[in-house]
Amino acid sequence: MINTLIEKIQKTNAPVVVGLDPMLAYVPSYIKEQAFKEHGETLKGAAEAIWQFNKGIVDAVYDLIPAVKPQIAMYEQFGVEGVIAYKKTVDYCKEKGLIVIGDIKRGDIGSTSAAYAVGHLGRVQVGSKTYVPFDEDFATINPYMGTDCVKPFIDVCKQEKKGLFILVKTSNPSSGEFQDRIIDGRPLYEWVGEKVNEWGTDHMGASYSYIGAVVGATYPEQGRILRKLMPKTFILVPGYGAQGGKGADLVHFFDKDGLGAIVNSSRGIIAAYKQEKYASFGERAYADASRQAVKDMVTDISQALQSR
Amino acid sequence: MINTLIEKIQKTNAPVVVGLDPMLAYVPSYIKEQAFKEHGETLKGAAEAIWQFNKGIVDAVYDLIPAVKPQIAMYEQFGVEGVIAYKKTVDYCKEKGLIVIGDIKRGDIGSTSAAYAVGHLGRVQVGSKTYVPFDEDFATINPYMGTDCVKPFIDVCKQEKKGLFILVKTSNPSSGEFQDRIIDGRPLYEWVGEKVNEWGTDHMGASYSYIGAVVGATYPEQGRILRKLMPKTFILVPGYGAQGGKGADLVHFFDKDGLGAIVNSSRGIIAAYKQEKYASFGERAYADASRQAVKDMVTDISQALQSR
Repeated sequence: MINTLIEKIQKTNAPVVVGLDPMLAYVPSYIKEQAFKEHGETLKGAAEAIWQFNKGIVDAVYDLIPAVKPQIAMYEQFGVEGVIAYKKTVDYCKEKGLIVIGDIKRGDIGSTSAAYAVGHLGRVQVGSKTYVPFDEDFATINPYMGTDCVKPFIDVCKQEKKGLFILVKTSNPSSGEFQDRIIDGRPLYEWVGEKVNEWGTDHMGASYSYIGAVVGATYPEQGRILRKLMPKTFILVPGYGAQGGKGADLVHFFDKDGLGAIVNSSRGIIAAYKQEKYASFGERAYADASRQAVKDMVTDISQALQSR
Repeated sequence: MINTLIEKIQKTNAPVVVGLDPMLAYVPSYIKEQAFKEHGETLKGAAEAIWQFNKGIVDAVYDLIPAVKPQIAMYEQFGVEGVIAYKKTVDYCKEKGLIVIGDIKRGDIGSTSAAYAVGHLGRVQVGSKTYVPFDEDFATINPYMGTDCVKPFIDVCKQEKKGLFILVKTSNPSSGEFQDRIIDGRPLYEWVGEKVNEWGTDHMGASYSYIGAVVGATYPEQGRILRKLMPKTFILVPGYGAQGGKGADLVHFFDKDGLGAIVNSSRGIIAAYKQEKYASFGERAYADASRQAVKDMVTDISQALQSR
């Protein structure tokens, strides 16, 4: 799957992933009204609204980008109905030819991690049949519990030709509380990065490993260090746009060939119509505003990469 | 909710939580056959089988214990249908008067963490209405991302009178890879424990904080240290039984009053009938085997606490 991701990045010329993190506050009122008319102001109504909202955006941007990253928390907040909308979104994006990175940040140990891995990336056995429950292409995972957490995911990825992005240095202000603490002269995130590189070396695609890392756009200096420390690791970079990361901050995350990283923007794309810059699109054309925001983001990153 | 948990522990004389982590391999064949007869060998059939299995166990043990801990991974592996079975299990356990600790190990940042918190412990707004999507009483969370992860959960707990158990030192063999690394002379898990204690101090129930910690039974010496480091923190202790933890290992996790900790067993209870010790119950009486295993576990822990 990492090879397919890279091919798609090259084809679209866009090392960009759109974060499908729908909050009801982002959904245009005409979509909410329609959903509430059908299902009432219920969890089902909310789930229908975010699904319709997603569908509009995916239809508007799918030809410009290689991948999307739905954030499962935004669906889980609506309970079972939300999870149904998550699954619908995953399926629809795959139908449209997009690679789906499930931003699930799961992590547990042994058979429990294996259950998450099977549920999200693999297939589960029921009697004599097998099923692919959520069927994302990549998943994000949390490394705090160590190899016992990661190994079951790697096993499933190997079998299913899928991939992971493991949290290394996250984009949030307090990520340093534990991640920056110094161990034998180096911050924890470097040790985690080294481990990700080690896991990745044994699980290579054509040019990069299918065991990737998450490093926040808000920490460009750390990105530069981690890029060198994990030479074959593809980096998923959140924190662009709404969280403060800019194109110029991103250049260190990429290799000389312009590969090695994929940058996520969520709010900056999906709620673009709420920004002054795209306000002229209006609520009804929210998806066109998202399309323009994707184009602007691609230009920003391309220019930053060219001018380095 | 921490006060209710403590009252229930005192009433049942059992600082014990049963982990509802159903794997299809644990489910007696007559339950699977019935479920597959109704729904086929489908994800729905699997979900029905684990739900019926859970129900049998809950009916057999609910009067002996204060709480259960369903592991959401074991449900998520069956996709949306599994998540429906998880919700059914949560609701049923609450109907039976049990406290539900959702073992979800979630963690993200800002509005995303808030979405998880709202979905699992709080209420979500849909138009003019509010809903309680999953409605567990406690949730486990992963601290790798720092305060930005934990704070939205604390806010919801404060409002809803619910609680958390934050991963500090996990029970698995490789937990030391990152958690044991030395930072300024002390292992990372102590720094995390200190932070949990700090978060907890501002969020107190009557005698303990509603911001608890997870420390594995397999690390008794670390448990002793963390018990002192986090004097007002309730500790959820996994790793008893199948993972190797014994009653004698547990004494250090408790305070002098016999409170301060609650010990989880999953496989050792729910799949008791598969152990030689309880094999005479047979498959049909699997729930009775679980009841006996709960009684034996309570005795083991009580004796260990009395003889210290």
